Amino acid sequence: MNGADLLCDTLLANDVDVCFANPGTSEMHFVAALDRKPQLRCVLGLFEGVVTGAADGYARMADKPAATLLHTGPGLANGLANLHNARRAGMPVVNIVGDHASYHLPYDAPLTSDIEGLARPMSRWVGRATGPSDMSAKAAEAIAAARHPESGVATLILPADAAWTEAAPQDPVIARPEAAARVESATVATAAAALRENLDETILLLGGGAVREAGLRLAGAIAEATGVIVLAQQANARMARGQGRIALDRAPYVVAQAVERFARTRRLILVGAKSPVGFFAYPGLPSSPLPEGCEVITLAGAGDDAEAALADLAGALGLPPGTAPRIPAREAPALPTGALTPDSIGACLGALMPEQAIVCDEAITSGRGFYRHTQAAAPHDFLQLTGGAIGEGLPMSVGAAIACPDRKVIALQADGSGMYTLQALWTMAREGLDVLVVIFANRTYKILHGELKNVGAGAPGRNARSMLDLDAPILDWVSLARGMGVEAARAETAETFADLFRAARDRKGPFLIEALI
Amino acid sequence: MNGADLLCDTLLANDVDVCFANPGTSEMHFVAALDRKPQLRCVLGLFEGVVTGAADGYARMADKPAATLLHTGPGLANGLANLHNARRAGMPVVNIVGDHASYHLPYDAPLTSDIEGLARPMSRWVGRATGPSDMSAKAAEAIAAARHPESGVATLILPADAAWTEAAPQDPVIARPEAAARVESATVATAAAALRENLDETILLLGGGAVREAGLRLAGAIAEATGVIVLAQQANARMARGQGRIALDRAPYVVAQAVERFARTRRLILVGAKSPVGFFAYPGLPSSPLPEGCEVITLAGAGDDAEAALADLAGALGLPPGTAPRIPAREAPALPTGALTPDSIGACLGALMPEQAIVCDEAITSGRGFYRHTQAAAPHDFLQLTGGAIGEGLPMSVGAAIACPDRKVIALQADGSGMYTLQALWTMAREGLDVLVVIFANRTYKILHGELKNVGAGAPGRNARSMLDLDAPILDWVSLARGMGVEAARAETAETFADLFRAARDRKGPFLIEALI
Repeated sequence: MNGADLLCDTLLANDVDVCFANPGTSEMHFVAALDRKPQLRCVLGLFEGVVTGAADGYARMADKPAATLLHTGPGLANGLANLHNARRAGMPVVNIVGDHASYHLPYDAPLTSDIEGLARPMSRWVGRATGPSDMSAKAAEAIAAARHPESGVATLILPADAAWTEAAPQDPVIARPEAAARVESATVATAAAALRENLDETILLLGGGAVREAGLRLAGAIAEATGVIVLAQQANARMARGQGRIALDRAPYVVAQAVERFARTRRLILVGAKSPVGFFAYPGLPSSPLPEGCEVITLAGAGDDAEAALADLAGALGLPPGTAPRIPAREAPALPTGALTPDSIGACLGALMPEQAIVCDEAITSGRGFYRHTQAAAPHDFLQLTGGAIGEGLPMSVGAAIACPDRKVIALQADGSGMYTLQALWTMAREGLDVLVVIFANRTYKILHGELKNVGAGAPGRNARSMLDLDAPILDWVSLARGMGVEAARAETAETFADLFRAARDRKGPFLIEALI
Repeated sequence: MNGADLLCDTLLANDVDVCFANPGTSEMHFVAALDRKPQLRCVLGLFEGVVTGAADGYARMADKPAATLLHTGPGLANGLANLHNARRAGMPVVNIVGDHASYHLPYDAPLTSDIEGLARPMSRWVGRATGPSDMSAKAAEAIAAARHPESGVATLILPADAAWTEAAPQDPVIARPEAAARVESATVATAAAALRENLDETILLLGGGAVREAGLRLAGAIAEATGVIVLAQQANARMARGQGRIALDRAPYVVAQAVERFARTRRLILVGAKSPVGFFAYPGLPSSPLPEGCEVITLAGAGDDAEAALADLAGALGLPPGTAPRIPAREAPALPTGALTPDSIGACLGALMPEQAIVCDEAITSGRGFYRHTQAAAPHDFLQLTGGAIGEGLPMSVGAAIACPDRKVIALQADGSGMYTLQALWTMAREGLDVLVVIFANRTYKILHGELKNVGAGAPGRNARSMLDLDAPILDWVSLARGMGVEAARAETAETFADLFRAARDRKGPFLIEALI
């Protein structure tokens, strides 16, 4: 038994049994140790962004962390963008980064870099094992940090010699994460009073645990009893949607629309949500869309149990336990015909999505039609890009599919952002994951064209077009998918799209539809 | 005129006229400014690793920096691995990273992160412009830092409001980089005395500027005059090779071989090279392959002018200016037949490479046959992976081709590392770059299989194979290339490979050969 074996034992003893990996030479003893633990499932990503995005998607659906395995500073660097997204989603990740043997570091070998420095901006916890003596304790510390109520990325650095040094047999350390805080009753009373008063207008802004199944039921009942407006924050790690769940609007992404939405808001009560801010700043527009004087009450903040807070709030309002809102059956959209547009794709999805689908959305501008068309779809979970670092949609789908092998994963993927981590398709094929990928092929960074227009730059010239358009050459996603072992087909009309979607829905395994919009 | 215009003016006034870019919303004013400067060439990469790797490759061949344009912390993070390689290659990069407007940062919008913290590990200089008042000075500071004699990555952070704020017309600041140090005469005298004594054995270890055309001529003449052994360091940013240049061995990559190579070395004289160290540490093997008591003399270190140091050394040894070594014509290898192997590919290249090709090598294990087969090839430049962060080969080729549009670029690319930044193929097609890509398709992380064996892990089991093999599903590089607009074909025999290579060599524009080995 060596340090690496002890690390594997500690992961397994703490219910971390999936490892998304792209190892290198310095991790070979850890790879050998993993090879002795068949109960720990190792999933290869052909680029580290796939690895970390998959860990995020896995945590969203498994409600527990996966481990990663990355190779030294550059391997970590390649995974940082999706760790940023995981951090913003409040997702736990046990991020294991191999390093040179400790005595080798002073020689400044080519791959040497400041791993702690690289990890810190995206990690809630950064630590380094020094050998078998502290391996299990450090790993348990990392797991506890990842499972902290606020969750986040815990980066454990694993020097090669810490992995390969022989260890005495020992019991792995069990992580003792903090429990989520129960919201204080005074806070609940403040929120309840505000709801009873229901100043025009008062908004209950939901996020985190409040937009899962049980939270939504409570929020719906509270809204029904008080008349208060319920809204979800703009981007959510995981939201329960579709038939049988309350139809919930989100705070708008576009700043001017958000300003308009909140123009009359006098009280905003946050339940697992952050106070809304502009995704970007724009000359002449405010950073926060809230009007002056709007009172913000935080019922449940980061690290609080948002669902329990809603239950307490319902109790304080005198609602009997188990109250549920009346949710009328909604009519699913009819199947569209004719031109393929983001809207007609949204309608198709609304009509055809299977029960309990997991929808991973990185469709950017093209996905804006999806939301309203799918309020009446079969019940599903909706996973969004939370940190704005594009290139997470396909990897997140990989992780969700590993976590929930019996549910269909639907990846709504813009072409521009899809190119960031297209290697995820290969992992889908390798692992036989039940992912249906829809590529919204508009062949441009459409959002940036809009933003450039906002800047008042006029018609884009040669340099601007060279940085914003993806049409020369055309990206052929059918070839790209086939190159990585994923079956694929192209749709140019709503009818073809519906046919392809239905066929892919009714079989298992990965399939990609390139939707020319 | 705004801050962004001022930045463009400063870049152009300092001869930075290529910008490898992947912009986002916060960079739109800079994009608009670039659009007003058609003399600044903007090249889009569909992932930031392409952008930064291209900037490295460009600097290697243009001997001046390009600018990059990256989008906030996650965009920078995606580019860090190839910035690490550029740093290790000693290449100048003016790395421009957009950020939120300064007043928006306290709102902690989703894309906010610690950009300085992310940049520092890979940058020699990190700075932030605050507005038009310091924009040109900061940009000039960044350019001077990148052009420092030791070269490196200078990261200039560009807040959106610094870009969009109106500026008074003004002259751009001209960067004043330090000059390379001339090696002191006492150091030259020490090295000259060591060469005259030529203790058995004495090695002149070359790197940096010493392995360019003029440096090699000087080193060859010195070797001829003194009998000293001349060797190149293991990985070099750019080395002149082929007919008419001295045939130069490199320090071995494999630690045991390096230990053997240096076993009898009593004096090592470094000229632009670093003292050799193991790429990785291994139990029972030393970090440095040098034997105890080996004297190391640094004639030219980082920031010194290695070529001038060799000229001074030649002078101190009494060689007349302009002395050149006798370089016998070498016989190019015959065209191989039969099975396609790394060796037969090496021989094909030795026989068929065109004059003044630029060879970008990230073939990892498969490339080890190339070097000896091409000592007699037509004169060419040989660019290696210097920092060990895989995923640089294809992007580096993009940059080299932009820098030298009249030379054929040959990318020797392993399949596993090629998958890291395959998006570079699209940029080759978009810009019509004259790059001939050879994919060494062994369908495994072959180097890691070797390393796992070294660990004594025995035959790999399910988990190890799942992390090291790329054969299920097979990567179809012909489809992948076509998906990005690059013509491609597959070779399974030496004859087919030679035919394809010859045909691709004799036309302009990108072409990919998937070599099944």
